Amino acid sequence: MSNLPATAPVPGQPVTPSAVSDSVFLRACRGESVPYTPAWFMRQAGRSLPEYRKLRESVSMLQACTRPELITEITLQPVRRYGVDAAIVFSDIMVPLKAVGVDLDIVPGVGPVIARPIRSRDDMKQLRCPEPDDVSFLCEAIHALVSELGTIPLIGFAGAPFTLASYLIEGRPSRDYAQTKAMMYGEPQLWAELLDRLVALTAAFLRVQIEAGASAVQLFDSWVGALAAADYQRSVLPAITTVLTGLASLSIPLIHFGVGTGELLRLMAEAGADVMGVDWRVPLDEAARRIGPGRAVQGNLDPAVVFAPWEVIAAKTRQVLTAGKAATGHIFNLGHGVLPTTDPDVLARLVDFIHAESAA
Amino acid sequence: MSNLPATAPVPGQPVTPSAVSDSVFLRACRGESVPYTPAWFMRQAGRSLPEYRKLRESVSMLQACTRPELITEITLQPVRRYGVDAAIVFSDIMVPLKAVGVDLDIVPGVGPVIARPIRSRDDMKQLRCPEPDDVSFLCEAIHALVSELGTIPLIGFAGAPFTLASYLIEGRPSRDYAQTKAMMYGEPQLWAELLDRLVALTAAFLRVQIEAGASAVQLFDSWVGALAAADYQRSVLPAITTVLTGLASLSIPLIHFGVGTGELLRLMAEAGADVMGVDWRVPLDEAARRIGPGRAVQGNLDPAVVFAPWEVIAAKTRQVLTAGKAATGHIFNLGHGVLPTTDPDVLARLVDFIHAESAA
Repeated sequence: MSNLPATAPVPGQPVTPSAVSDSVFLRACRGESVPYTPAWFMRQAGRSLPEYRKLRESVSMLQACTRPELITEITLQPVRRYGVDAAIVFSDIMVPLKAVGVDLDIVPGVGPVIARPIRSRDDMKQLRCPEPDDVSFLCEAIHALVSELGTIPLIGFAGAPFTLASYLIEGRPSRDYAQTKAMMYGEPQLWAELLDRLVALTAAFLRVQIEAGASAVQLFDSWVGALAAADYQRSVLPAITTVLTGLASLSIPLIHFGVGTGELLRLMAEAGADVMGVDWRVPLDEAARRIGPGRAVQGNLDPAVVFAPWEVIAAKTRQVLTAGKAATGHIFNLGHGVLPTTDPDVLARLVDFIHAESAA
Repeated sequence: MSNLPATAPVPGQPVTPSAVSDSVFLRACRGESVPYTPAWFMRQAGRSLPEYRKLRESVSMLQACTRPELITEITLQPVRRYGVDAAIVFSDIMVPLKAVGVDLDIVPGVGPVIARPIRSRDDMKQLRCPEPDDVSFLCEAIHALVSELGTIPLIGFAGAPFTLASYLIEGRPSRDYAQTKAMMYGEPQLWAELLDRLVALTAAFLRVQIEAGASAVQLFDSWVGALAAADYQRSVLPAITTVLTGLASLSIPLIHFGVGTGELLRLMAEAGADVMGVDWRVPLDEAARRIGPGRAVQGNLDPAVVFAPWEVIAAKTRQVLTAGKAATGHIFNLGHGVLPTTDPDVLARLVDFIHAESAA
């Protein structure tokens, strides 16, 4: 736990909640003025870091996600490396499902695999809300992290109902979501019941993380871009709205993200998040226009740009920063998760560059 | 070869080229008035048909794509079943690469796998233009098909340079195109040379099919939606423009399609196709607005809608037909290929419904 950045707590000087609340990241989430653009990276904790791969040599993904000391250490690794403006708790969107008893594994090279995919009302009955005791490993890690991180905010997260449903129904990652859509189109009552259960589960899981100390949460609807807007509006948006409005009273920033959501951004923003995550396909000024005023944007450098020479990375980063100025607030991020073969030194340089460029 | 629809040639009455040219499909491609909306389905020939699966029991995909009698039979199967307004030659976008000697296979459950992925200038030297003799199996099949199909037009096709490059560089299907983009961003000269070779290969392959008798061609840039518009404009659009403008003098409709291209449609249309294929994410009236006047649209029922009860399919089909009226011309299709578990009887009913609804 050494080598934390200068914003870590000084022994004998307790960090006040307001010091976290005044962090550049949380100010930007709320659309307040900031001295520079804050940055973090989706999947910053994980497979691109050699120190992470070393830790994972003899530990499965689900084991790593359920051991507090590993969650804590892996969450801190990118904070030490990169000087990012926020940490995101090391976990997986499958964790709350596993915690309530869904028989699943995260298979290397494949992704989540569900032993008995959900096809009927009976199959859904296992989907109850996680209690703090179901995810005590995560609460314990969050407590430790809040203490270690000092003024650096910690982001909790959950998968959104559509994305969770897609794994539960398909049984594994999918390219076409045929069975998921088959239920959505063909058995709308069954679909609604599944989403109701996932809304309750997701909201409860986010609430547990917030109550444990997370100072922002991100809702990952990673695969919702597979839907046409009319289907999203009818079959998914009400669920997201319920999750987000239910958390509004907790007064912490809610971030909402999906991939390939250009046609959905306007609707997604209606669900009530404070910050809309945007992938690299929609420039942030155009995203801000679709989202409307009063919400910050997060994004959106193509994760593959980091493989280019530095001058290309710098030019594209400048474009993102410039476009981000059109929004009420901007948190710099990649347009999707850090790719496994990313060079950590490039990300470290990138954070410094973002800070320097945006402060100029 | 029995049970062909009524538009098949009558013995003793040769089909004139103008009878094909006056077909509803080709008229719609040119934006001319039509008595009803023509329909065909991407991947209509193939894995969703039991008669196809029976033929393929002991024949690999690449074998099936290189035996004229199989190409002919598989191409005709959906014409017999569905009464579609166009046939598309049974092939695969990997066929011209294999034909010029690229060591690749199409692996069941995986997709195209390239033995030695392309990473250098030397690796590219194998990418020459296919001559008619390299794909004589295809020319022979097209000759037979033109005769069998009578007034029903035959569509030839090819993969577009970006999509072909992505397979050649990644070595197999990819979710993130990390290595493809790494070359595009990081080695722009190498990327340009690769695309130049693929432009020549693609144009030559389409020309061979047209000269053999195809009366329209579709350029599949299936995965180009992975790019941001600015990158598409700089690194891909010039290649597509070269392919399409080079074929313009042949005076047959050019169809251009990719998945997840909402942000790219305006640029893609500039490349010069007569018909823009659109996936299910962008309603066709909005697509027509982005594409501009003077080009037809093709699409765009979500392929998963066919799993819904008939009244849902009918309602969504009506929406597609209504939105399609905003365009200069409309060819009904799915928004991507027929899914393997699709019930052929539903597609047959769908074609009848499209014809009846649009003629009303």
